[in-house]
Amino acid sequence: MGTDAAQRLRIAVVGLGPIGLEVARHVVGDPMLSLSGLVDIDPKKQGKRLEDFIEGVRDSDVTIMDDVEALSDTDVVILCTASYFDRIAPTLRMLMRKKANVVSSCEEMAWPWLNNPHLADVINNEAIAAGVTLVGTGVNPGFVMDVLPVALSSMTLNVTKVRVVRVVDALTRRLPLQRKIGSGMTVEHFNKLAKQNQIGHMGIGESVTMLAQGLGRHPMRSEVKISLRPVIAERSIESAMGTVEPGEVCGMHNVGKWSDETLEIELDLTMALAAREPRDEITISGDRTITTIIPGSTPGDTATVASLVNVARIVHRAGPGLKTMLDLPVVGSR
Amino acid sequence: MGTDAAQRLRIAVVGLGPIGLEVARHVVGDPMLSLSGLVDIDPKKQGKRLEDFIEGVRDSDVTIMDDVEALSDTDVVILCTASYFDRIAPTLRMLMRKKANVVSSCEEMAWPWLNNPHLADVINNEAIAAGVTLVGTGVNPGFVMDVLPVALSSMTLNVTKVRVVRVVDALTRRLPLQRKIGSGMTVEHFNKLAKQNQIGHMGIGESVTMLAQGLGRHPMRSEVKISLRPVIAERSIESAMGTVEPGEVCGMHNVGKWSDETLEIELDLTMALAAREPRDEITISGDRTITTIIPGSTPGDTATVASLVNVARIVHRAGPGLKTMLDLPVVGSR
Repeated sequence: MGTDAAQRLRIAVVGLGPIGLEVARHVVGDPMLSLSGLVDIDPKKQGKRLEDFIEGVRDSDVTIMDDVEALSDTDVVILCTASYFDRIAPTLRMLMRKKANVVSSCEEMAWPWLNNPHLADVINNEAIAAGVTLVGTGVNPGFVMDVLPVALSSMTLNVTKVRVVRVVDALTRRLPLQRKIGSGMTVEHFNKLAKQNQIGHMGIGESVTMLAQGLGRHPMRSEVKISLRPVIAERSIESAMGTVEPGEVCGMHNVGKWSDETLEIELDLTMALAAREPRDEITISGDRTITTIIPGSTPGDTATVASLVNVARIVHRAGPGLKTMLDLPVVGSR
Repeated sequence: MGTDAAQRLRIAVVGLGPIGLEVARHVVGDPMLSLSGLVDIDPKKQGKRLEDFIEGVRDSDVTIMDDVEALSDTDVVILCTASYFDRIAPTLRMLMRKKANVVSSCEEMAWPWLNNPHLADVINNEAIAAGVTLVGTGVNPGFVMDVLPVALSSMTLNVTKVRVVRVVDALTRRLPLQRKIGSGMTVEHFNKLAKQNQIGHMGIGESVTMLAQGLGRHPMRSEVKISLRPVIAERSIESAMGTVEPGEVCGMHNVGKWSDETLEIELDLTMALAAREPRDEITISGDRTITTIIPGSTPGDTATVASLVNVARIVHRAGPGLKTMLDLPVVGSR
């Protein structure tokens, strides 16, 4: 099972939050991969190593640097910093100059033309000129509510409706997720933050658009309808964040929709403490109706790490440019 | 929704059994596609038109010809003739000379290197030289037991086992399928035909190999273990083929396996009259275990038609050569 160091795919990780650290941990343990760099802007992390953050991780001589400019000898950068495409654009540009391919968990980058069409075109041209591939991916957006329903739709003709219901029991997820969905807030506070885009899931609009594109449609931003509402606790719920009392917020309900005369898309996402019937459920209605269920729902934290690593292995196959998961061949785990 | 005739993808259908006829029926009704030819070797079909076989089909001026040499002005041929790759090779060569891309339901063509490695290499080179793409696809092989589990595996790392259980209630399927699985035979007769490869499902070895390839492995033919056993009726079952009595064969159980030191693949297919709990169930065991269920199982007949048509729309994107579903971007319905 050994692989010569020279044959290994050299991966650097930029952004060492929980996801980035887990990605790095997998990379150092995978015989097909080698860790070529670690970058984080947090001054407290500078000069430290992976083993300072993750117990029992395989030793690596890579120390954390504060600037992507310091990266070298890297085939693919896994970028886990911001959720907004315009915020990561400067980093993408530095990485393009280094001729590194990039796989990012940036939610907007899953379909960057939705919210940043001009910038996406410019970055695409720059990536083509640099001969590198840039792709945004993850579980959601990136798979459960977009790539997977597109793939399942291939088993039907004359599709008239695609509905995806994802219900995540936030009690099974890490603390940042529980915070992000508003657990323990008042309804008023939740709604205020929701109006300011300070809370909730990112990427449902990108998923709606990617799914529509995979079905041959070309939605405009103004046609994609997104709603975000709090889920209210009906009983008291014990969580890692403390007790959530009845009447307080215990999660969020995020719906994205798009339709034209012949096709209706509805993505319905609930992430809440103690949510009932956690699952991913994809229903494709066409010449036949095919329902697909992932009981318990795809595990968001570990699966995000997996998707980033697995896409990194084949990202170059999409060819140079700012690409999406619809451009890549089917991604498997190695 | 109208599309100029000049922009439509021109599709010819070769082999007008139940699947080929349904493909043609869809093509004439799809505003993005145009039917450029129909071919079948059956003399009784010559000169006839689609409406002579399918009631209520949209009128088309295409008449059935007896030879693919007569085809012209075709972008993609959907080839639904034989299940063995060496049998369709002469047809593939004629179609390559016409610069047509080919999508085929030929089960061996889903992974042609399994049983015909030399011929597959030769055909691949010829396809590259001709600048056309050839791909074998379908529901099984082509999706449920190979492409879909590969796609789902991207959500996990360190995969140690992939198990797919497909249970099809043959009462819900067309008559040829009921015959093919041995319904009503004695066990002795079934086993005799099974030894001669005259009965049962084709393609499970191709699915095992494609799935392993999608997970970065390269199985040899001799390592893929396939078993085929009859399913025995425990009670009398009424079917379109008549009553199957207790003790007679009511279906087949086909298992394909492969493993190496780190990964185990098991594909378990039952197709039987009145089979219990019909479903597709995919279990990926890795850093997490993720189970995916399609209750009722993917509908084989309509979904085969859908996969052929949907792949035809994007087959060129795999680039010239003899390709597989692992080379294509995610296929959606249009």
